[in-house]
Amino acid sequence: MKAEYINPFITSAVNAFQTVLGCEIRRGVPALKANTKPQYDISGVIGLSGSAVGTVVLSFSSNVALQAAGTMLLTEMTEINSDVIDAVGELTNMVAGGAKAQLEHLQLSISLPNVITGLGHEVRFPSNVTPIVIPFDSDWGPLTVEVGLSEVPAAVLV
Amino acid sequence: MKAEYINPFITSAVNAFQTVLGCEIRRGVPALKANTKPQYDISGVIGLSGSAVGTVVLSFSSNVALQAAGTMLLTEMTEINSDVIDAVGELTNMVAGGAKAQLEHLQLSISLPNVITGLGHEVRFPSNVTPIVIPFDSDWGPLTVEVGLSEVPAAVLV
Repeated sequence: MKAEYINPFITSAVNAFQTVLGCEIRRGVPALKANTKPQYDISGVIGLSGSAVGTVVLSFSSNVALQAAGTMLLTEMTEINSDVIDAVGELTNMVAGGAKAQLEHLQLSISLPNVITGLGHEVRFPSNVTPIVIPFDSDWGPLTVEVGLSEVPAAVLV
Repeated sequence: MKAEYINPFITSAVNAFQTVLGCEIRRGVPALKANTKPQYDISGVIGLSGSAVGTVVLSFSSNVALQAAGTMLLTEMTEINSDVIDAVGELTNMVAGGAKAQLEHLQLSISLPNVITGLGHEVRFPSNVTPIVIPFDSDWGPLTVEVGLSEVPAAVLV
């Protein structure tokens, strides 16, 4: 995957957290993903298709998810309920949407966000796609943004 | 979600299992999904976008995943390794691809399959989309095909 595809997702995540949540997230060092690392407690997943196909995964520790949902809904959240699920899905959608706008040449369209729960869950990619994981830290706790994109051969698009 | 969107996924799943795996899967009664039901052990997830957006989730008990991968690779599989992950992803891709062909008017494009593992994991949809779950039984064990699709207002597509 081309490194230049990653920056739009980083910018978009930082912007979404700053603008919507007033929360500064601090980027760590992006890395290729070891295939067997579990996600944090709750992950938003959204598919991308166009002249590249792929997935964005936002994975949050519980506290990040609860604080983010609480901020969006102006109330305190104490458990992972459907409001928190929706908030995580919506943030995932915003990050994908922001990156899509910056990757106009790929003509990406975005599917519906799904949210994965379950302790120790993993979101795996096909073995021919190695996603890049960008770790972030915040005052609410850690999160990751993971992007796996594969360019579609021009012949297939006809 | 329109019921007529479901049949193509049913047909496509039955065909994929029959053609690729020589395995007959028997359909149970489709139902709206209660939002908190955990998936089986391993789930393939793929995003759809076009004039509807959504997700297909194939969820397999471990034995179904192992037998399916073993049949595709002509070898016995005894653990959920990256070959099994790829096989589940590929089956998910086939089911989505087959349904897409039957739903030509929606001009769907398909993202990359991701595969979710983790005991008791759940794949949740946004609360404004209620997916339909189609249970299947087979000689290898149970599986489900779950489809959540939301039509995109025409104005958004311009």
